[in-house]
Amino acid sequence: MAELENHLKTDPNQLITTGPFPASEKIFVSGNSHPDLKVPMRQINLSNGERQIVYDTSGPYTDPNAQINIHEGLPTPRREWVLARNDVESYEGRLTRPEDNGHRSAQSIQSPDGLKRTPLRAKSGMNVTQMHYARQGIVTPEMEYIAIRENEKREALADKYFNGEREARLRGHSYGAHLPPLITPEFVRDEVASGRAIIPANINHTELEPMIIGRNFLIKVNANIGNSAVTSSIEEEVEKMVWAIRWGGDTVMDLSTGKNIHLTRDYILRNSPVPIGTVPIYQALEKVGGVAEDLNWEIFRDTLIEQAEQGVDYFTIHAGVLLPFVPMTVDRVTGIVSRGGSIMAKWCIAHHEESFLYRHFEDMCEIMKAYDISFSLGDGLRPGSLADANDEAQLAELRTLGELTQIAWKHDVQTMIEGPGHVPMHMIKENMDLELKHCHEAPFYTLGPLTTDIAPGYDHITSGIGAAMIGWQGCAMLCYVTPKEHLGLPNKDDVKTGIVTYKLAAHAGDVAKGHPGARLRDDALSRARFEFRWEDQFNLGLDPDTARAYHDETLPKDSAKVAHFCSMCGPKFCSMKITQEVREYAKNQGVSVDEAQNKGMAEKSAEFKSKGSALYVVDGASN
Amino acid sequence: MAELENHLKTDPNQLITTGPFPASEKIFVSGNSHPDLKVPMRQINLSNGERQIVYDTSGPYTDPNAQINIHEGLPTPRREWVLARNDVESYEGRLTRPEDNGHRSAQSIQSPDGLKRTPLRAKSGMNVTQMHYARQGIVTPEMEYIAIRENEKREALADKYFNGEREARLRGHSYGAHLPPLITPEFVRDEVASGRAIIPANINHTELEPMIIGRNFLIKVNANIGNSAVTSSIEEEVEKMVWAIRWGGDTVMDLSTGKNIHLTRDYILRNSPVPIGTVPIYQALEKVGGVAEDLNWEIFRDTLIEQAEQGVDYFTIHAGVLLPFVPMTVDRVTGIVSRGGSIMAKWCIAHHEESFLYRHFEDMCEIMKAYDISFSLGDGLRPGSLADANDEAQLAELRTLGELTQIAWKHDVQTMIEGPGHVPMHMIKENMDLELKHCHEAPFYTLGPLTTDIAPGYDHITSGIGAAMIGWQGCAMLCYVTPKEHLGLPNKDDVKTGIVTYKLAAHAGDVAKGHPGARLRDDALSRARFEFRWEDQFNLGLDPDTARAYHDETLPKDSAKVAHFCSMCGPKFCSMKITQEVREYAKNQGVSVDEAQNKGMAEKSAEFKSKGSALYVVDGASN
Repeated sequence: MAELENHLKTDPNQLITTGPFPASEKIFVSGNSHPDLKVPMRQINLSNGERQIVYDTSGPYTDPNAQINIHEGLPTPRREWVLARNDVESYEGRLTRPEDNGHRSAQSIQSPDGLKRTPLRAKSGMNVTQMHYARQGIVTPEMEYIAIRENEKREALADKYFNGEREARLRGHSYGAHLPPLITPEFVRDEVASGRAIIPANINHTELEPMIIGRNFLIKVNANIGNSAVTSSIEEEVEKMVWAIRWGGDTVMDLSTGKNIHLTRDYILRNSPVPIGTVPIYQALEKVGGVAEDLNWEIFRDTLIEQAEQGVDYFTIHAGVLLPFVPMTVDRVTGIVSRGGSIMAKWCIAHHEESFLYRHFEDMCEIMKAYDISFSLGDGLRPGSLADANDEAQLAELRTLGELTQIAWKHDVQTMIEGPGHVPMHMIKENMDLELKHCHEAPFYTLGPLTTDIAPGYDHITSGIGAAMIGWQGCAMLCYVTPKEHLGLPNKDDVKTGIVTYKLAAHAGDVAKGHPGARLRDDALSRARFEFRWEDQFNLGLDPDTARAYHDETLPKDSAKVAHFCSMCGPKFCSMKITQEVREYAKNQGVSVDEAQNKGMAEKSAEFKSKGSALYVVDGASN
Repeated sequence: MAELENHLKTDPNQLITTGPFPASEKIFVSGNSHPDLKVPMRQINLSNGERQIVYDTSGPYTDPNAQINIHEGLPTPRREWVLARNDVESYEGRLTRPEDNGHRSAQSIQSPDGLKRTPLRAKSGMNVTQMHYARQGIVTPEMEYIAIRENEKREALADKYFNGEREARLRGHSYGAHLPPLITPEFVRDEVASGRAIIPANINHTELEPMIIGRNFLIKVNANIGNSAVTSSIEEEVEKMVWAIRWGGDTVMDLSTGKNIHLTRDYILRNSPVPIGTVPIYQALEKVGGVAEDLNWEIFRDTLIEQAEQGVDYFTIHAGVLLPFVPMTVDRVTGIVSRGGSIMAKWCIAHHEESFLYRHFEDMCEIMKAYDISFSLGDGLRPGSLADANDEAQLAELRTLGELTQIAWKHDVQTMIEGPGHVPMHMIKENMDLELKHCHEAPFYTLGPLTTDIAPGYDHITSGIGAAMIGWQGCAMLCYVTPKEHLGLPNKDDVKTGIVTYKLAAHAGDVAKGHPGARLRDDALSRARFEFRWEDQFNLGLDPDTARAYHDETLPKDSAKVAHFCSMCGPKFCSMKITQEVREYAKNQGVSVDEAQNKGMAEKSAEFKSKGSALYVVDGASN
C-alpha cells in the first residue's frame, strides 16, 4: 500500500470540482417502461420565470445532494439492469500484476487493488451487447434512458417558440440524417440494431449514465485525458475527468501511459458517469518495454481482458493499418502521425507480416461481446497535415475499417469509426460521405479536422471550424483539440477551452442539421440578450463564469459605451419596445402588417417624437 | 493646446509596439511599370535555409530601419502618385470646429489641429477613383503595387512543392471565384473596373500601402478599434491600430464616439499604412447631441467632408434602412442590433419620411468620387440572433444595397456590401449567393457570422466558424469578432485573439477556395513540424509568441511524453526517415511503388529489426 499512499492524498474533495452551475438545478426524469430510471438534466432558472433544460454530462458532481468520495466511487444504479437480464456471471477475474502498472519483475512493489470490483462477463454462449438486444427487439433500460435524455423535456416546449413560418425559413439541412421531433425508446433500439448508433456501456461500468453516439442524435464531444509525468497524481487524473464532464465532455478517453495506469483507470472508471475509452495498445506496449516488434496477440489479448474487467466502454483498435498500406505514406509531408498507427506500422514492417490486430479481429469480437465493449476503429493513417488529406493511405485504411465493421456487426458488436485529422474545408465532406459509404453508416468520430496548419496555439479553433462542419454533415462525435495541440500537454484551462470550443461547434452542427431542439437555447439566450437580462445571458451560455467575468471586467466602460443611447431613454423606449407597439397596433386594428405599416407609421411617428425617444442598441461594439 | 497635452504623452514609443517578428525580415519588391514601388513583404528565414514569404500588413512598425514618431506620422510615398495624375487640387479645406471633437459652444476649448494636412480633392469635373481609372484602362501604381503584393513572390515557388498529382487531389472548390496562378496589374485593373474588387484609397491617405478587397484575391480581415471611455488616450488608439495590423488586420475601422474623435482620427490616419474605415453617422449624431431625429443631410454631408479631407478610405453608410423595412423587424427575437441601423430606423419613424441617406445617395457619390472614398454599404437590419437570420427585413435591405451599388457604379464609386451577423451554418451560403446576385458581385464584407448564440465569451470562435465558411464561399473581407463580443470592450489580448482567429479563418477559406499560394505556408509549417524544427514551426505560425510560450510551458512534460518512443531511437529512425528510405529504394531500383513495396518490404523488415528501431511519433497528444 506504500505506492497507493504516495498517490492518494487524504482529502480528495480539495481536488475534485463539485457544485452546481449558477442558477441551475439538477432534475431527474423517470422512465415509463422502466420507472426506476433517474435521467439527469440541468434546469437553468431564468429571472423572468422561464426555465431552460439543457443536456447534463456532469454526473453527481454538480448535484448538491450527492456525496462524493472518489475512494469509494460513484453509486452503481446500472448494476441492477445488467443483472436483471440474467445473462452475465460474476467471476474472480484476472489478477492484477505488477506490469499492469508499469512495474517490472523483482524491482516492483506489489500493485494496490485500488477500487477493484468482482467483474461480470457474459455467460458462456451469451452476447450482452446493446446491439444484440436491439436486434432481438429488446428495449433495454439504457435505451429508454437515452431517449428521455436526448429529448430534454422538449415535449412540453415543442410548440411554444416555433411557429410554422419561422421554422420553414430556418429549417436545417440534415444531409440525410433522420431527426425525429421526439426520440422514442424504439427509435433508439432501431438505430442501435442497424449499427447507425452505439451505446458504449461495458457491463462492468455500472456507474454509467448511458448516452448514445449516432448521427440521428445530438452531436457528442469527447475529451482526452491521461497521466504523463510522475507529477500527475491519480486524484489529479480523476479531477481531469470530472472537470472535462463538467464543461460538457460526453465521453472521456484515458490515454495514460507509464506508471500506475491500471490503478489510474480503476479510479477514473469507478468515478465516471460517462463512457471511458482507451487505446489498449498503449498499455500493451508498456508491457513489452516499449519495443513494438515484441508485441503479440497474447499480450494484447491479456490487456483487453484486463481493461474489459475494469469496465472500459470502448477500445480504439488500429486494426486497419495493414502491411501494404505503410508504403503509401512515403510521399506524405507528415508520414504517420497516429501513435497507435505508427506502433502497428512498425510491427508490420519489422515482421513483414500482416497486423495481428487484423488477423485476430474475430477473436477480439468474442471479447467485446462478452462485456459489451464498443469498437472505435482507429485511423492510424490519418493525415497529419493538409497536404496529406484524403490520400490513398487514409482511404485504403477507411475501406478496411468498413470491412471490419461488417465483421464486428456479424457478432453484434457495436462499432464506430475514427476519422481525421487535418483536412481543408472543401475536402471535409468527402470524408463524411466516404465514411458513410464504406463503413455502412456506422457512427463517425473525428479529431477536428484542422482546416489549416498555420496556427499552432490556436488549433482548438482551426479544428473547431472543421468539427462544426463535419458535425453538421453527419459526424456523430467530435474529439476535442486544445490550444496546446502540437505544442505540449494541456492544463486545466486548456481542457476547458477545448471542450467549450467543441461544445459550441457540436451545437452549431445540431442547429444546422435542424435538430428539433437545438435552437431553443440560442433563442432563450438571444431573448435574454435583447431584454438586457445579463444574468440570464451568462447562465444560458456554455461558460457562465467566463461570460460574467468578461462582462464585469469592462462593465464601467461598457455601460459608458451604450449610455449615449440608452441613458437618454432607458429600456422604456428601446427598439424592441417600438416594434412591439407596432405589432400590437396592427393586432388591435385588425389589419394586415402592410396596412398597419401605412396606417400606423404616421401615428407612431408623432408618438415617438412626443416622447423624445431614442432607440436602444444592443450590439454596441459593432457598427 | 491644454487638451492636446492631456492626451499626448511625451514618449510615444513606450506605447507603440514596434520591432520585427522572430526570424523575420521585411523585404521590398519594386514594380515593373512603376519602378519606384516598394512593396513590403515579410520573409521568414527557416533553420534549414529555406525562406517563406508571407503577406505583411504591419507597415513600418516592424521595420527596424524605420523611424517611428506618431506626432509626425508616417512617410507619404503615395502623394507623388496622386499628384502625378494631375487631376487633384490642394485647397484650404474645412476648418476644424469644436463640435468635431465633441465640444459644444462656449464651454469648449479650442480644438487642436493635430496632424492636419492641407487636403486634396478632385479638380472640378474630375473623378479620381481607382474604379474610374480602371474603366479608362489605366493601370495605376496602386494596382501594380497590389498585384505584386498579392503574389508574395510565389512566381519563384510555384512549381517547387506542388506536383500535379497532389494538386489534383487537393484542388480547391472556388464556388465560381476566379483565382489565376499569378495576379497581374491588368487583372487588378479589370477586377476594379468590373466592381468585383475595391481599392480603398482616399487621395488624402498618402501613408497608405494599397490593398484590395475582392473575392478573386486573398481574403482580408478587418479589425475594429475606437475610443470609448475618457481613460483611452489618443496614443492608446494609435497603438490599438498598430497592434491590430501587427497581427494581420488588413483594414481598421475607427468606431470612436465621444470626445476628441476628430483629433484621434487624424492621428490614426497619419500613422496608418492600412485603409481606415469609419461610420460617419456616429460623429454626425454627436454633433446633434445624440438626438437621432435632429440629424439631417447638411450635418451629415459636413461630416463626410470633414472625414474625407482627413483621408478616411471607406465609409459605412446605412442607406438601405428604409422606412417600409422598419416594421419588418417587429417579429424578430432581437429587433435591430446595428447602431447605425437603429439610428436610421429611429430617424425614419420619427419623421415618417424616407431615409435622408437614401434620398441623398447621389449627392454622396459626388463627394466619394472627389476623394476616392469607397462605400461600405451597411447592413443596418442584419440579424442579431440565429432566429432572425435571412429574414425579410435583412433581405429587403440587401436588395436595396444592390440598387445603391448600381447608382454608385454609375459614378465610378467603389462599393462593397456589409453582411451579417448571426446565421446558422446551413444558411450562410444563401447570404453569399444572394449578395452576389442582388449586389452584382460587389465585394461582400461580413461580421462573422456567428453560427450559434449560446457561447458568450467565445464568440470569436462561434463567428470564426462562419467567417471561414463564408470566406471560402466568396466573402472578400471578414470583420473580426473578439471574445468580449456582447459583453464589453475588448482589451489588447482580445484584439489579438480576434485577429488571429480571423486570420486563420481567412486562410482556411483561401485554402479551400484553392488560392494558388495559400497552402505553401501550411506545407512549410507541416514539414517543420514533422522534422522537429520547433523554432521554424513557431515562426511560421500566425502567432509565434504564443506557440513558443505554450511549448516552453510544458516542454519537460512534453519531452517526457514522447520520450518513450523517440529516446529509444532518436530522429535517426523516425517514421519519416523510414518512409524516405522506402522511397529512395524504389527510385534506385527503377521500379514502381507497388513493386518496390513487394521487393523492398522483406529487405526493409530485416534492416529495421537489425537496428532495433522504433518509429517516431509526432502527435503525441492524440491516439
